[in-house]
Amino acid sequence: MANVIGIDVGGQSSKLGVVNDKGEILAQCVVSSLQDSLSDYLNDLTGAIRGLMSKAQVKGIGIGAPNANYYNGTIEFAPNLRWTYVDGKPTVVEFARLISERTGLPVTLTNDANAAAMGEMAYGVAKGMKNFIMLTLGTGVGSGIVIDGRMVYGHDGFAGELGHVCAVPGGRKCNCGLDGCLETYCSAIGVARTAREMLAGDSRNSLLRQLESPAISSKDVYDAAKQGDAIALEIFQYTGQLLGRALADFVKFSAPEAIILFGGLTKSKEFFHEAMEKSMNASLLKIWQNKVKILYSSLKESDAAILGASALAW
Amino acid sequence: MANVIGIDVGGQSSKLGVVNDKGEILAQCVVSSLQDSLSDYLNDLTGAIRGLMSKAQVKGIGIGAPNANYYNGTIEFAPNLRWTYVDGKPTVVEFARLISERTGLPVTLTNDANAAAMGEMAYGVAKGMKNFIMLTLGTGVGSGIVIDGRMVYGHDGFAGELGHVCAVPGGRKCNCGLDGCLETYCSAIGVARTAREMLAGDSRNSLLRQLESPAISSKDVYDAAKQGDAIALEIFQYTGQLLGRALADFVKFSAPEAIILFGGLTKSKEFFHEAMEKSMNASLLKIWQNKVKILYSSLKESDAAILGASALAW
Repeated sequence: MANVIGIDVGGQSSKLGVVNDKGEILAQCVVSSLQDSLSDYLNDLTGAIRGLMSKAQVKGIGIGAPNANYYNGTIEFAPNLRWTYVDGKPTVVEFARLISERTGLPVTLTNDANAAAMGEMAYGVAKGMKNFIMLTLGTGVGSGIVIDGRMVYGHDGFAGELGHVCAVPGGRKCNCGLDGCLETYCSAIGVARTAREMLAGDSRNSLLRQLESPAISSKDVYDAAKQGDAIALEIFQYTGQLLGRALADFVKFSAPEAIILFGGLTKSKEFFHEAMEKSMNASLLKIWQNKVKILYSSLKESDAAILGASALAW
Repeated sequence: MANVIGIDVGGQSSKLGVVNDKGEILAQCVVSSLQDSLSDYLNDLTGAIRGLMSKAQVKGIGIGAPNANYYNGTIEFAPNLRWTYVDGKPTVVEFARLISERTGLPVTLTNDANAAAMGEMAYGVAKGMKNFIMLTLGTGVGSGIVIDGRMVYGHDGFAGELGHVCAVPGGRKCNCGLDGCLETYCSAIGVARTAREMLAGDSRNSLLRQLESPAISSKDVYDAAKQGDAIALEIFQYTGQLLGRALADFVKFSAPEAIILFGGLTKSKEFFHEAMEKSMNASLLKIWQNKVKILYSSLKESDAAILGASALAW
């Protein structure tokens, strides 16, 4: 019985686990991603991999990482990983090759949202589905697209940047340089930006006014909504409306059976789900109205990333 | 040497051709699509098919038709085909089965834009490409999406309705019932609508003012642009800007090598291409800027649809 190692490279920490063919995590560990030097980070990571390899027979490694390219095995210009920078400039790191050389194992790399989609397809709510779109609603918005049972990588390996479709023409400035990107509205940071805008343009009382405006987080908006705060509830309504309209356009592209949502923002789904679903259906052609499912990941968030990455290695 | 028959079912006429494996049309003919009764139309069409079958050995039939579903072999609710209506109501016609029963040949059906994409992949500018998006800019806007060498049909067979993504939130009313659809701006009818709006909101002189406003067509705008008419030129600039922004969002989905444009509106490309390309690149993430090709179909328009449909049958 061979196993594989799944690695989730996050901005703060990298989580590793040995996974068997039933999707059970036999052993796991964590190393910090906050290294400045690539060689220091690689030393820590390969040390942890060898630790796992000593516990079980391992036949390959799957890695999910931000800005990762499946075709090239590279991590390209990842703003949140300091060890990808040389002399202050973002570079291209041949990550799969470097890990393979140090461990002697075959390594498959893909971006973190694709890995999440693979995990959902292998072990989660997308089991048995051939056409679905995974959206990760976290600090930003990522996506993994599955068509006809296959992950979509596109011509260059970078397919599925749905966090950067234009949700509002001429809208909010995004870190990527574009205007109006979906992730400037429908992510944790987007919700916080909506809160600041709504509070500034409104004189009603709100629990959120007890906080310094720049410090308001999506968690604060969630807490206020829980207490019935009208502005907080409207913030999530607005988020849901914009997200639903964007989902409808994704449906027009690949006609998925379901859209699967994952990530921190989904904890607030009680406040945005209804608005999102209504807005999606109102923006769909009749052939799709009330037919496309919106589902939430069923995997434990801490395990999902490791499982997703491991699914790559099989 | 077996051949196939390609059939392009259009709103006005249905074009048929026998095509060999080199993509040469050996014989072709046309029947009217303007029948009220399904059985009359089927009689005409199968008569024409038998005529072609008497001239060459044929092993299968490929058909491109509006609102056609590849999985089911059906034409569903096609507003422009009168013979799909019963008692004034649109119905589902099992078109592939009906033609197959009458001819004894295997029949494959897909929507017309998908057929155009197949034709381009088999015989046109997409030869050798594995990832591209075909947009047909005609009276409306259709699309066919190819990912990893395979046509995208989606969960239900209706994938690729890119004419109905939201180009302008809250924008023009579309025949489909939605607001702001791409085809209400970037089709022949869209250009005519832009012309009427711009002329009404502007007091400058224009050649287009010599025409009755409701009668202005995209061809009139083209003719005026040819003579340097400032408003006509702005109409195409606006069309190109909106189209470019939409193309950028399509790239973020499937990361194609190229976008291929086809259809009547492309005859005006000299007036919108530059604005479209500039707008697309301005709306793309840096990884794609100036990398995604925008190409035009290289097939003779009258042959392209037959070739595309025939490509399905192989």
